[in-house]
Amino acid sequence: MLRNFIFQTEREEKETVKQEIKKLRDVLFRQEQIIKKAKLPVLVLVEGWGAAGKGRLIGRLISPIDPRSFKVVSTNAPTDEERRHPFLWRHFINIPENGKFLFLDSGWMDETIRQKQHKELSSGEYANRLQSINTFERQLMDNGYLLVKIFLNITEKEQKKRIDDLLAEKDTSWRVSEHDVWQNKHYDTCLADYEEYLYATNTPDAPWHIIESTHKPEAERDALKILTDCIDIAVKNREAQEERPIIQKDYPLNPTPLLCDVDLNRTISDEEYDKELKRCQEKLSALHNRLYRKKIPVILAYEGWDAAGKGGNIKRITNALDPRGYEVIPIASPLPHELARHYLWRFWKQVPKTGHITIFDRTWYGRVMVERLEGFCSEREWKRAYNEINEFERELTDWGAVLLKFWIHIDKETQLTRFTARQNDPDKQWKITDEDWRNREKWELYETAVNEMIQKTSTKTAPWHIIESNDKKYARIKTLHLTIEAIEKALAAR
Amino acid sequence: MLRNFIFQTEREEKETVKQEIKKLRDVLFRQEQIIKKAKLPVLVLVEGWGAAGKGRLIGRLISPIDPRSFKVVSTNAPTDEERRHPFLWRHFINIPENGKFLFLDSGWMDETIRQKQHKELSSGEYANRLQSINTFERQLMDNGYLLVKIFLNITEKEQKKRIDDLLAEKDTSWRVSEHDVWQNKHYDTCLADYEEYLYATNTPDAPWHIIESTHKPEAERDALKILTDCIDIAVKNREAQEERPIIQKDYPLNPTPLLCDVDLNRTISDEEYDKELKRCQEKLSALHNRLYRKKIPVILAYEGWDAAGKGGNIKRITNALDPRGYEVIPIASPLPHELARHYLWRFWKQVPKTGHITIFDRTWYGRVMVERLEGFCSEREWKRAYNEINEFERELTDWGAVLLKFWIHIDKETQLTRFTARQNDPDKQWKITDEDWRNREKWELYETAVNEMIQKTSTKTAPWHIIESNDKKYARIKTLHLTIEAIEKALAAR
Repeated sequence: MLRNFIFQTEREEKETVKQEIKKLRDVLFRQEQIIKKAKLPVLVLVEGWGAAGKGRLIGRLISPIDPRSFKVVSTNAPTDEERRHPFLWRHFINIPENGKFLFLDSGWMDETIRQKQHKELSSGEYANRLQSINTFERQLMDNGYLLVKIFLNITEKEQKKRIDDLLAEKDTSWRVSEHDVWQNKHYDTCLADYEEYLYATNTPDAPWHIIESTHKPEAERDALKILTDCIDIAVKNREAQEERPIIQKDYPLNPTPLLCDVDLNRTISDEEYDKELKRCQEKLSALHNRLYRKKIPVILAYEGWDAAGKGGNIKRITNALDPRGYEVIPIASPLPHELARHYLWRFWKQVPKTGHITIFDRTWYGRVMVERLEGFCSEREWKRAYNEINEFERELTDWGAVLLKFWIHIDKETQLTRFTARQNDPDKQWKITDEDWRNREKWELYETAVNEMIQKTSTKTAPWHIIESNDKKYARIKTLHLTIEAIEKALAAR
Repeated sequence: MLRNFIFQTEREEKETVKQEIKKLRDVLFRQEQIIKKAKLPVLVLVEGWGAAGKGRLIGRLISPIDPRSFKVVSTNAPTDEERRHPFLWRHFINIPENGKFLFLDSGWMDETIRQKQHKELSSGEYANRLQSINTFERQLMDNGYLLVKIFLNITEKEQKKRIDDLLAEKDTSWRVSEHDVWQNKHYDTCLADYEEYLYATNTPDAPWHIIESTHKPEAERDALKILTDCIDIAVKNREAQEERPIIQKDYPLNPTPLLCDVDLNRTISDEEYDKELKRCQEKLSALHNRLYRKKIPVILAYEGWDAAGKGGNIKRITNALDPRGYEVIPIASPLPHELARHYLWRFWKQVPKTGHITIFDRTWYGRVMVERLEGFCSEREWKRAYNEINEFERELTDWGAVLLKFWIHIDKETQLTRFTARQNDPDKQWKITDEDWRNREKWELYETAVNEMIQKTSTKTAPWHIIESNDKKYARIKTLHLTIEAIEKALAAR
């Protein structure tokens, strides 16, 4: 009789869990429309032990959601292409759009722990990695992302049982990876690694949710509860977003002058220019070869006044380069699918692979110039951007990239002369638009913004170089010199 | 004296070539603006012998052009990712936008010849490959692309000399590939392969330009002359574009009924539905596993009336699938950068890799439905599209993909009932827009277009399936059955 009673209770409990799941799935189904309306992007990171049921759980979580509203990505070992980019690259370019879900079947945690276990990361590198991850996660949240981090936990015994069960069947044995088996054999070491990681990345805004995954329905219920609660809170707090503190990390800065203190009278004679251009281009051409072989990535970021001579300046660089090893990325207004993501997303996507050069003709600094001045982003957003950009650039330089930032500088009179000349030359009229004239009217506002930008983002590892370009030829030689110098320095350090 | 005279003439000739190059570079510089205005995309394919100077030539050709207007792509051996897609995939997704140049440092020719030489292609496969290439090139031209095909030729002796020179210097030896050396040893075989290929792909609209590449300045002059002439003609012929013949290849068709002949009264009982849904989903789930292991790609293309039940139908499929192995692609209006390319570009980009399933919620058939009826493309464009789509799908099925196309069908009254129900349900109001009502007014026009589409594109290898969806449950079971059947057939054939 007692036995029957226990069964009865178990059945009832099972029934309760089933009912709870049903209710929570309804909630999630409704939330799909709510996040669409609120333009909330939701990133659900599911990490955990091998054979803990990550894939299965995600399969259950998505089932009430319309397939058009989510994406599932399994993070495998990085491909060759991915290995030739910074660690964060493949994770950053996967982030969802506003109003959509992304479910990650393991992600940057699993990758990092494996690399640590395979001794691919020194302890210093591992510490830096944790920094990068916390920065990445914080940037996502600052930019309105909801990040839900779930860790599926099972005991050593349970893991062993699951692995054995899977291996026993021909149809399922291929699902067990060598790493899973290894993990079970070194369960305690792994546990310590996991605990250390979870502790180091457990931030108040993106805490870890540890789910006991032995019983599948309970695990599903718990995950649904966590996810729906998080969405609920995130939607309610959408307005409060603006009150998050603006962080400014203390990166060492490089003293760089204010624009008004720059001497724009520097010139070069035509003769000297021709000679030096030839010499520099030959030099740069040879260096490009060596960069390619040593797999050093180079990023040149160009900003400057309209008609300052960015295009011609870039051309003098590219003429020296092997066309198979570089790319020029002109930056225009963001497209709708770009606007629907973190503003750095479109720049992350263009980060070169090792050994290649990417030249940005206008850059991510649009955030603190045109977007600031035209009101395309909020004050908090552009104020936050200085630090976000420093963090972004730090990822690039830590990865080993040579990063040079040029402000191509002219004075207001020179711009007028050049605008007028363009207007009068049928071959160059296309280069000048009404927008250029409108921007010119805001010269003083831009000057303030540019000065602030340079003061706040001229870091030691990625300093700004102001290029005096009233004499375009002088400017070209100066950027060539700076580029050559930086590349030589990087080559010498390898 | 005679000797001096000869020198004099050589010098003069050299001077002449230099002057010609200068002039042609000026022409190209101006053409950059002309192609921008004419929205002409220009694809320059540079093929040729190893060490013939392809990279160098491209470096010279681009030098008068603004770096923002071109891209250079070196076609290397396909990556693992690329190998898991159809042959044309990586070439198609690289095509330039309107008004821009793409320079290819070797491309589909080099790849094809190498595969032939490495016995990766049987002679039958090679013949099919040539068909694919000619189709690809013709589609580009039909869609307004200028394709300039250059082959750089050098003699066996000259190639040997260049390879030896490169190998002699530590700084250049890495530029010589094993294949280059192999090629020189088997020069005559390669020559025969090249000649056969050049002959087979030398079409009136995209002829080969063979350039003698021994003397670099002359080769540069010749290439500049060819390129600028081709651009000149293409811009002049831009209007005549509309007069190109509309090709309709004779793919065997699958008899498919007109919409008005479809019996929409088919239903399924709730009980039978529940039972069959469960059975089918379990079956499909097991098949997905096997597909994944056998690396068979699957593409499901959904079209249908608004409110016909596409979303719910897709969901019954995806609920059975492992979320790590499929993706649902909702198709909306094309974005600006998509509009600036061949209309199939955005669909090519989404072709799954082997072993994966992609479900398109609306498809490339928009071209012959909404784009046709709303005037988003010209009459010639949508008329041409039937064949282009058949060709596209043939590439997919020849590659080994399972491709299923579903027209989810309801009658006009059922649509009205569902629209009204949506309007009255706060949870579903978001599903109905003014556009849906406007489209409904054009029901008869759409019906004509859909019938024509189905009659012209229901090929034997990629037939249309009309899914009676007045009873949504009946429709879901039918698509599940068709999907299971097609996958089983594909698995049996492996």
